[in-house]
Amino acid sequence: MVVHVVIFNWRDGVTADQAAGFRDALEVLAGEVAALGTIRHGADLAYREGNGDYALVATFSDRAAWDAYQTDPRHKAFLADFVTPLVASRVAIQFEDN
Amino acid sequence: MVVHVVIFNWRDGVTADQAAGFRDALEVLAGEVAALGTIRHGADLAYREGNGDYALVATFSDRAAWDAYQTDPRHKAFLADFVTPLVASRVAIQFEDN
Repeated sequence: MVVHVVIFNWRDGVTADQAAGFRDALEVLAGEVAALGTIRHGADLAYREGNGDYALVATFSDRAAWDAYQTDPRHKAFLADFVTPLVASRVAIQFEDN
Repeated sequence: MVVHVVIFNWRDGVTADQAAGFRDALEVLAGEVAALGTIRHGADLAYREGNGDYALVATFSDRAAWDAYQTDPRHKAFLADFVTPLVASRVAIQFEDN
């Protein structure tokens, strides 16, 4: 199983409503894309200075499922409509959960 | 439930053996610290350029459990013995999994 993790930092000026829109769109995406196994996502709880602003942790059955997600038009639309306008930077990783 | 995510980037020159030692020590820590609910961790699969090098995704029942983990001497020893010497940078976040 492949674990896909992304930590996002918002652009300056992103509003709570925009962040909520990001969250809701990600929730819809999760329901639409079969290749995506499970997903957990949410906004930083501010336990600590210097954290990212939002994160997602998704699982995929294998590399092929992850590749299918990357090329899925609904994922691409989410990137264009929400990630590009709202996100200043992101750190990502995929690892094998043994 | 609190999801705690950290993405690490190694210092230059970190060897595969050192990375394996980091992984093994984290596995031991996970077994020792009761406050830590579940943990998934692993090295980047190199699906994409620019990813982090290692990540962990841990869950805690609540903020108090997360705080207990932060102050646990075995976690502090892991930070001193493995994170400080091997890690150049890290991005972290904690979010509420609904």
